[in-house]
Amino acid sequence: MNENKKVALIIGAGDATGGAIARRFAREGYVACVTRRSLDKLQPLLEQIRDEGGEAHGFASDARREEQVAELVEHIERDIGPIEVMVFNIGANVPCSILDETARKYFKIWEMACFAGFLTSQAVARRMVGRGRGTILFTGATAGLRGAAGFAAFAGAKHGIRALAQSMARELGPLNVHVAHVVVDGAIDTAFIRDSFPELYARKDQDGILDPEHIADSYWFLHAQPRDAWTFELDLRPWMERW
Amino acid sequence: MNENKKVALIIGAGDATGGAIARRFAREGYVACVTRRSLDKLQPLLEQIRDEGGEAHGFASDARREEQVAELVEHIERDIGPIEVMVFNIGANVPCSILDETARKYFKIWEMACFAGFLTSQAVARRMVGRGRGTILFTGATAGLRGAAGFAAFAGAKHGIRALAQSMARELGPLNVHVAHVVVDGAIDTAFIRDSFPELYARKDQDGILDPEHIADSYWFLHAQPRDAWTFELDLRPWMERW
Amino acid sequence: MNENKKVALIIGAGDATGGAIARRFAREGYVACVTRRSLDKLQPLLEQIRDEGGEAHGFASDARREEQVAELVEHIERDIGPIEVMVFNIGANVPCSILDETARKYFKIWEMACFAGFLTSQAVARRMVGRGRGTILFTGATAGLRGAAGFAAFAGAKHGIRALAQSMARELGPLNVHVAHVVVDGAIDTAFIRDSFPELYARKDQDGILDPEHIADSYWFLHAQPRDAWTFELDLRPWMERW
Amino acid sequence: MNENKKVALIIGAGDATGGAIARRFAREGYVACVTRRSLDKLQPLLEQIRDEGGEAHGFASDARREEQVAELVEHIERDIGPIEVMVFNIGANVPCSILDETARKYFKIWEMACFAGFLTSQAVARRMVGRGRGTILFTGATAGLRGAAGFAAFAGAKHGIRALAQSMARELGPLNVHVAHVVVDGAIDTAFIRDSFPELYARKDQDGILDPEHIADSYWFLHAQPRDAWTFELDLRPWMERW
Repeated sequence: MNENKKVALIIGAGDATGGAIARRFAREGYVACVTRRSLDKLQPLLEQIRDEGGEAHGFASDARREEQVAELVEHIERDIGPIEVMVFNIGANVPCSILDETARKYFKIWEMACFAGFLTSQAVARRMVGRGRGTILFTGATAGLRGAAGFAAFAGAKHGIRALAQSMARELGPLNVHVAHVVVDGAIDTAFIRDSFPELYARKDQDGILDPEHIADSYWFLHAQPRDAWTFELDLRPWMERW
Repeated sequence: MNENKKVALIIGAGDATGGAIARRFAREGYVACVTRRSLDKLQPLLEQIRDEGGEAHGFASDARREEQVAELVEHIERDIGPIEVMVFNIGANVPCSILDETARKYFKIWEMACFAGFLTSQAVARRMVGRGRGTILFTGATAGLRGAAGFAAFAGAKHGIRALAQSMARELGPLNVHVAHVVVDGAIDTAFIRDSFPELYARKDQDGILDPEHIADSYWFLHAQPRDAWTFELDLRPWMERW
Repeated sequence: MNENKKVALIIGAGDATGGAIARRFAREGYVACVTRRSLDKLQPLLEQIRDEGGEAHGFASDARREEQVAELVEHIERDIGPIEVMVFNIGANVPCSILDETARKYFKIWEMACFAGFLTSQAVARRMVGRGRGTILFTGATAGLRGAAGFAAFAGAKHGIRALAQSMARELGPLNVHVAHVVVDGAIDTAFIRDSFPELYARKDQDGILDPEHIADSYWFLHAQPRDAWTFELDLRPWMERW
Repeated sequence: MNENKKVALIIGAGDATGGAIARRFAREGYVACVTRRSLDKLQPLLEQIRDEGGEAHGFASDARREEQVAELVEHIERDIGPIEVMVFNIGANVPCSILDETARKYFKIWEMACFAGFLTSQAVARRMVGRGRGTILFTGATAGLRGAAGFAAFAGAKHGIRALAQSMARELGPLNVHVAHVVVDGAIDTAFIRDSFPELYARKDQDGILDPEHIADSYWFLHAQPRDAWTFELDLRPWMERW
């Protein structure tokens, strides 16, 4: 392990948000370690970070598999540097009536958006507690605070990850590990929104959807907070969003 | 199906609370269908209900298995009567530092206290929606509202079940199915508390721990509410409990 | 004071809800003491209770005036009987843009819906704590949980009364005084709704607005709870209400 | 009005927090307009800002008086510059049993911590809405989220100010005025804590109490957020705080 390097590990850098966070931390001097299930798709992000003068490593790692998570953390800590900040950024909603939801999909949404968060944050937390420092950040959603009709699976997973974050924050805060949860409430400027919700995307030119770069700024703000004034939770939404 | 019978299905009648709820509904004229994993251990409850003049049926059914759940609901609806009320009452906490929690236990706590709730309530909700009436009640806990140090797994599962309840209530209320969530905040008068937490149990003689019969009264109250004034959530705690 | 009598004091029995609660407690054998600012308008309620075989007393008392409150409580306790249950049921919303709200109206809404609740519940609580028993119930609203656009004044007052209720519940519970808060979420079957919101009132024939009698049942339920299983908060809404 | 100047108005700059916020905005190029009831006591802060190269104006203004508030805002907007950001930072807790609280003190705590917030934020909001931009920030407390025993008055006021903030945020966000609420949860490094709670103050050397400068950084962060990613609420607490 190179003690002079500081690693920012982004679990789920497959979307615009995870990528922007990785680049943000790279610009601050962190080695960006980014994961998604397919390594190929990480290449553009890795190149972008390197083009900006940063150091980046990509990993094809399934965050739902305990052994893969253990191996990932072991590899990074041994060969690259200590993980100073971890961001858990996995989770996708596929709304469905509770009457039609399948057990398989209910399980998979939880496995990705919650169980994987447990596995990865625990593995990293053990290292951080050993060093007596570190930051763990979770990407949350409004569904983590409220269960809406058609959102049973996603709300369940997002409530679960928020409960994990809160339990960890209360246990690990006094061990000098900062755990925080960001509630993203609104559409994000992504290809998915552009292609699937053009009427939402049309708000972009009046700043009506979230810019991933600005989400990333909030993650950096949380990590940079001095320990006498830590935030556990903040929400982010466009000015014109109804809530 | 005997249309003249009304079934109250209690998923998880293995503890004092589930048993008291089953007996309460039986006294109100409902056929009590009670489940736990072992049929043998249900015998005392079944006898007690029959001694009180009620009708009761026991089922060894694993609520975490979709096929077993489907079979259970099919069997009851075909051979006994329409399920008018279902109570989901499974879930046990085994506190643990987030650093020491095993993936297996984290999963199992969720599988029992949340996933099983999804499987059973969905299977029953489909029948209820078809008939345009019914009540689904979930036993919750303070951990469903707040994640405490050492409670990551239990809080995750209980947050998940509350999210499910809220999503269902919002979707199924307008279909005339009443979904509610009861937050039990305090020790219950059970063999477990008596044997493992004698200092808590000592509060019993001053009404300092919850009597399962009184919890059952609240479940009946919720089921009996006319539909112009339904409750989604109520909390229950002893007068002397700190909160 | 007649020790054999039990008084239920309803502060704000001017609307359908307060009246229904008074009648409910009278039917359970309580002497109903009801207040509003004008005595004349209380006569129909008093007669109704007496016609139903109950005992009722009306008081013109301004709950915003400390001396009037002190005098009311002193009078009842001296001449009628111990106040065993008090219900605070004052508070009306007049929505307004924050830009147009007047200081006078902002103050008055708080004075009626919050300050009067402090004055009356405190005066009664002192008596109850002296006797080591009693119940204090507050009528709340969704605005007590969430501030919506156009609701700054009402939400402020309702948040304030909920904070009062929660603080009292935590302090007085261990003194055997049960404090609870009811969140009424939806239109109530009143002359006001009938005349001002006919499209809401039209839902009545499908149970889409709250029946005051059913609200009153919930208040009785709370008062009747044994002290090992007290509820602090429950919500009430029609089955078809969106929330 | 000098259109080239941008004013940051701090209502309640009498404590360490308000002062630090004023200095922070002054360092960013804002003209700091600071108020408290006594002008004399503002002098050290004004001098400090000027020594740091900033522009500062002090006002003896009672935020509980509508005319004084109107005059203050009129004066600043006419003679100094447009108010681009306002911070409401008044409110002090004096814990008391609900049985012993006086009506006078209950009222005064609300008048200072809530009513003054309504008067000042409304007066400023009208100007901001007219210009189509601005930021309004409220200093909150844990008592704004939860009513604890002995906190009825303070919790009532702080719940009220949070309800105001949330109502304003929902109404004014779509008018491009950013309203946010900061939950400060923990002791702040002030003369009051040093003198009255020495055992809390002793935590200072391990960063166990909040540094006003760091609180001020969070206020700046909120004001600087681009409008596609606005935060309504964030909490601040020392790493070692129990919550």
